[in-house]
Amino acid sequence: MTLSVAVSGASGYAGGEILRLLAAHPDVEIRTVTAHSSAGQPLVAHQPHLRSLAHLELQATTPEVLAGHDVVVLALPHGQSAQYTDALADTPLVIDAGADHRLTSPEDWATFYGGDHPEPWAYGVPELTVGGVKQREHLRGATRIAAPGCNASTVALSLAPGVAAGVIDPGDIVSVLAVGPSGAGKAAKTNLLASEILGSANPYAVGGTHRHIPEIRQALVAAGAPADGIRISFTPVLVPMSRGILATSTAPIRGEVTDAEIRAAWEAAYADEPFVELLPAGVFPRTADVLGANIASLGLAIDRGANRVIVVAAVDNLVKGTAGAAVQSMNIALGLDEATALPLNGVAP
Amino acid sequence: MTLSVAVSGASGYAGGEILRLLAAHPDVEIRTVTAHSSAGQPLVAHQPHLRSLAHLELQATTPEVLAGHDVVVLALPHGQSAQYTDALADTPLVIDAGADHRLTSPEDWATFYGGDHPEPWAYGVPELTVGGVKQREHLRGATRIAAPGCNASTVALSLAPGVAAGVIDPGDIVSVLAVGPSGAGKAAKTNLLASEILGSANPYAVGGTHRHIPEIRQALVAAGAPADGIRISFTPVLVPMSRGILATSTAPIRGEVTDAEIRAAWEAAYADEPFVELLPAGVFPRTADVLGANIASLGLAIDRGANRVIVVAAVDNLVKGTAGAAVQSMNIALGLDEATALPLNGVAP
Amino acid sequence: MTLSVAVSGASGYAGGEILRLLAAHPDVEIRTVTAHSSAGQPLVAHQPHLRSLAHLELQATTPEVLAGHDVVVLALPHGQSAQYTDALADTPLVIDAGADHRLTSPEDWATFYGGDHPEPWAYGVPELTVGGVKQREHLRGATRIAAPGCNASTVALSLAPGVAAGVIDPGDIVSVLAVGPSGAGKAAKTNLLASEILGSANPYAVGGTHRHIPEIRQALVAAGAPADGIRISFTPVLVPMSRGILATSTAPIRGEVTDAEIRAAWEAAYADEPFVELLPAGVFPRTADVLGANIASLGLAIDRGANRVIVVAAVDNLVKGTAGAAVQSMNIALGLDEATALPLNGVAP
Amino acid sequence: MTLSVAVSGASGYAGGEILRLLAAHPDVEIRTVTAHSSAGQPLVAHQPHLRSLAHLELQATTPEVLAGHDVVVLALPHGQSAQYTDALADTPLVIDAGADHRLTSPEDWATFYGGDHPEPWAYGVPELTVGGVKQREHLRGATRIAAPGCNASTVALSLAPGVAAGVIDPGDIVSVLAVGPSGAGKAAKTNLLASEILGSANPYAVGGTHRHIPEIRQALVAAGAPADGIRISFTPVLVPMSRGILATSTAPIRGEVTDAEIRAAWEAAYADEPFVELLPAGVFPRTADVLGANIASLGLAIDRGANRVIVVAAVDNLVKGTAGAAVQSMNIALGLDEATALPLNGVAP
Repeated sequence: MTLSVAVSGASGYAGGEILRLLAAHPDVEIRTVTAHSSAGQPLVAHQPHLRSLAHLELQATTPEVLAGHDVVVLALPHGQSAQYTDALADTPLVIDAGADHRLTSPEDWATFYGGDHPEPWAYGVPELTVGGVKQREHLRGATRIAAPGCNASTVALSLAPGVAAGVIDPGDIVSVLAVGPSGAGKAAKTNLLASEILGSANPYAVGGTHRHIPEIRQALVAAGAPADGIRISFTPVLVPMSRGILATSTAPIRGEVTDAEIRAAWEAAYADEPFVELLPAGVFPRTADVLGANIASLGLAIDRGANRVIVVAAVDNLVKGTAGAAVQSMNIALGLDEATALPLNGVAP
Repeated sequence: MTLSVAVSGASGYAGGEILRLLAAHPDVEIRTVTAHSSAGQPLVAHQPHLRSLAHLELQATTPEVLAGHDVVVLALPHGQSAQYTDALADTPLVIDAGADHRLTSPEDWATFYGGDHPEPWAYGVPELTVGGVKQREHLRGATRIAAPGCNASTVALSLAPGVAAGVIDPGDIVSVLAVGPSGAGKAAKTNLLASEILGSANPYAVGGTHRHIPEIRQALVAAGAPADGIRISFTPVLVPMSRGILATSTAPIRGEVTDAEIRAAWEAAYADEPFVELLPAGVFPRTADVLGANIASLGLAIDRGANRVIVVAAVDNLVKGTAGAAVQSMNIALGLDEATALPLNGVAP
Repeated sequence: MTLSVAVSGASGYAGGEILRLLAAHPDVEIRTVTAHSSAGQPLVAHQPHLRSLAHLELQATTPEVLAGHDVVVLALPHGQSAQYTDALADTPLVIDAGADHRLTSPEDWATFYGGDHPEPWAYGVPELTVGGVKQREHLRGATRIAAPGCNASTVALSLAPGVAAGVIDPGDIVSVLAVGPSGAGKAAKTNLLASEILGSANPYAVGGTHRHIPEIRQALVAAGAPADGIRISFTPVLVPMSRGILATSTAPIRGEVTDAEIRAAWEAAYADEPFVELLPAGVFPRTADVLGANIASLGLAIDRGANRVIVVAAVDNLVKGTAGAAVQSMNIALGLDEATALPLNGVAP
Repeated sequence: MTLSVAVSGASGYAGGEILRLLAAHPDVEIRTVTAHSSAGQPLVAHQPHLRSLAHLELQATTPEVLAGHDVVVLALPHGQSAQYTDALADTPLVIDAGADHRLTSPEDWATFYGGDHPEPWAYGVPELTVGGVKQREHLRGATRIAAPGCNASTVALSLAPGVAAGVIDPGDIVSVLAVGPSGAGKAAKTNLLASEILGSANPYAVGGTHRHIPEIRQALVAAGAPADGIRISFTPVLVPMSRGILATSTAPIRGEVTDAEIRAAWEAAYADEPFVELLPAGVFPRTADVLGANIASLGLAIDRGANRVIVVAAVDNLVKGTAGAAVQSMNIALGLDEATALPLNGVAP
């Protein structure tokens, strides 16, 4: 069986990465690629690295063009997916790589995004626990999937096992992330110019304003945290690497748990997960080692002096953070082998 | 009056930066430069950017060579300064850019460095408060000065005003730092190769093992924190920029203080400081804007959702973090204008 | 005497660098700073590294605002300076950091820029030879100065001595330049986004289309090359560093000259130049060593196997390539010490 | 059929990349990995990105360990392969990723490497023409293969078609390359430290001393150039990207050829090549677009003003430059599908 797929936003970074992964997927035919303003141009004019897709031409992103495929991936700015809802009513699987369908709380949506609250879809992080089972189970047979926010899923995967096991306190989480600029997309903005980023570390959204905060909270509540008992200080810092998230997340140790009990929480959560890696004690991940790979690589430290657990996570924001999460979720939803077309090995150095 | 100066470790990064600053100092004659294994070579063979010092030749780092100057700067690996103590007994001012003379606690020294505990010297961060007065006062007339650790002074300057004012709780500090590799020095190590650092974010010393932790604690106790009431989770992350520290430091808000009261603590502490800059509310610093400058640039956020104050600080690790701190302290100790030869403006982009 | 100065384009990269240098100039008062669309904002909102100029507010770039200063610096996109000609008729010194007044040939202007050919002004590279004397002499007392193109002056300084001495053949020059993106300015363009530049080397203007080619030719003719005997293959490559030009320029060895005779040509040309540095044989420059400095640093190789002289030149495009050249020329024109406010030492690493 | 493979130098960059490619090869079992000084350690301790090979342990690089495999890949410093010759006498296929077996000329070996001249092996660039046929034909059934030098093969592929067709003159070639530091290997050297490379462009081997020059000459002679009619000026420049070569190569246009005739030479040479890509006229490659891919991507310009053809080539030095060339040649030698396990698409941005 070959599935026909359409990818919108194909000239951007998220769309391009979805195409890079799907180009190696044996069950998929990439039939349609669309872009807002570049219709009529070859895909490789915008994505010259995707030479195996040199036969594809960009089309306009319209409901008519997107309709009629087995799978549609929307890689659009937030707020834009609703206009395609009707046209895609009969599409067996729609995956939104944007933010529209991630949040279950209308209040959070109103606070962090504004406007009408779109319907929440199945959240595309199979390794998280929701209602006592892995989110993987909720994705089986799903017809509408929300790919996660890259920062949000990185932090959620970092801390959820400890929250679920009750060994860390979600009431005083601090996360600081070194992130590459590709997560901010391909739109030309002065603050994302190479001259501004090269040789510099630039914080943004400091002080609790980042839109991924409610998404982390939602994931940790799903993992077992009390809804009113979560506090997260979240600070992203742009650093001069095109891809990658290096998230340092800490939470207080809860009660009288041993180091072994703490580590066991993460080991148990991810022992059987192909795409979440817990490094040996004393070893911590680098973003280079996940470049291009669908991996969240975690290192765990227990700092008794600070009374905190520290989890350092490395993720390629465009792969496990976005496009890989989308393809992994697609595989699950359609009953394919979950690992199809998802690289384990990174490209380093 | 012209002061004769000798700089040891002149072929390294800290030594080079001290020379870069002193080359513009009107009251100083750089008479002697020494290096461990490059004696007899021109300084510019190792520091080709210091072309105004092209007349200088490196000498061996020996007590005899260093003796007889008005000022000696030791930019050596830790543990090496003691061998010069006797020879420099008559030297009016000795500044150690290394770690040997920073810590007052023998226990901390034993835990984090090991070996005999060298005598603590006057700590070279004039803007910190020690015993109710600015450290500047303690530096006046000092004859032995310990330049600070770059990460330590960055975090200490970030949080000391709030600790001193009692508006934050030092009992649960979390600091995560994006740092450039020049802080690790010029010795050839595989993990510091460009191929390992480019395009990657690499954490190190995770979990409470970094040697700057006791130095931060010492500075916050000096600012008024109870010695047994400080907990610091400290995680540095190497990022691909040669220089710079972007430190994100957070601490819980203490009691019923208003936003204005919190901000006032930092404003009061640094209003008259030429080399510590508090940015307007909502503005946060980038390391590019302090490149080459003797500035700690701070941005302050108050996150009521997380109940934490967040201070983001940008420092050039080689200037305000090391060499600038040394020269600033030297100026104070010798009764010169504190600002002599210390750039305010950064080199950006 | 204090000169009042106005700088237009003060929110951009070239304007910012002119301000960084002038801020340290003892004979100058920066009275007015203007920017196209940011009038009313503080300068430091756009140039946060220029904290010594925090008192300045951006004004609109209008003839009225610019008139009435001793010196006006125009750092504007090409084609925009003409509109200020009348208003600045009485201004003692106008320096254009843009391209408008560099080319003496109307044909070249028509071919590479188009539109009316603006009047050529005194070319701001004092170290080049024009009509048998250093351009420095032509700049004394000048009232209108055209700062050079950064790539053009770098290549011209690299090869002019050999052309003037007749030891290289200007008929088959090849120059390939690794350049940082700041030379392309601060306007938001997709191809200059950090995500596009980081980790990549990107050629542009390949095949003889770059606008600096006629400017190089003009300089080499001034140095003594026959106007119809110059051929230049010129290829710039964007690389991931914010500043810097590393130009590798080669030309065939001409006739039966010895290595010593070849090297002597460059030595003679630059022996007394404070801001052009000829490195010892076998040593070649790096851009890090000129960062922030007003230096063209040259290394010379003679490759008998290829029958070519190779000159590798490192220049900070924003300093010696633009703003430093402007200030150096200003100093000469006004009879000030040529070296005032111009750093010799770079900021490395 | 599954081939047993041993890879020596497995802890280095070239060895690691060979393993990354072979890990996806369906006909290969990576049985043995060796490293000079890390025997007994897990491979992932040195190559944490190769998590699919987490079961492998490094062994000592000895003749006994390497013997007995179907394929042995030597990724060792030059001069070290000879000691394994006897032990591998019965090994069906040996591939040397180092320099030992590339040069056919004892004189060139003596001049550029020194010592005994090792036997030349089949050169691993299938797309070059040797003796009127593609080198691919010479690789079929080969038992000893020399993988190419990354810079050499990039320049050879850039210019060979024009040389073979007689449209360019090999007597005055100029090549300037922007290269990432991973080509220099993983040994700790001060000049390769991140602090030295970040933010800087650093030339090396200027003036005709680089060891890849005779290798280029050899390839162009094989393509049809007269042995005594080749002159190459070759300058590599280290730039701050971990991987990648951006080679700008130019040669004079020969005789009265039209632009179409020139372009036709390259089109004919590479029309059927899966791993050499000629971009459309006016389009030039970036290294980002070949990252991780086994592609040489070429852009061709004809500059009549300079009377030169310019070919800009982008290659990932570790893939098409080394490891991909090795695997591609292995596939051909063993009669496998040439494209097996060789990525076409790059990882960008």
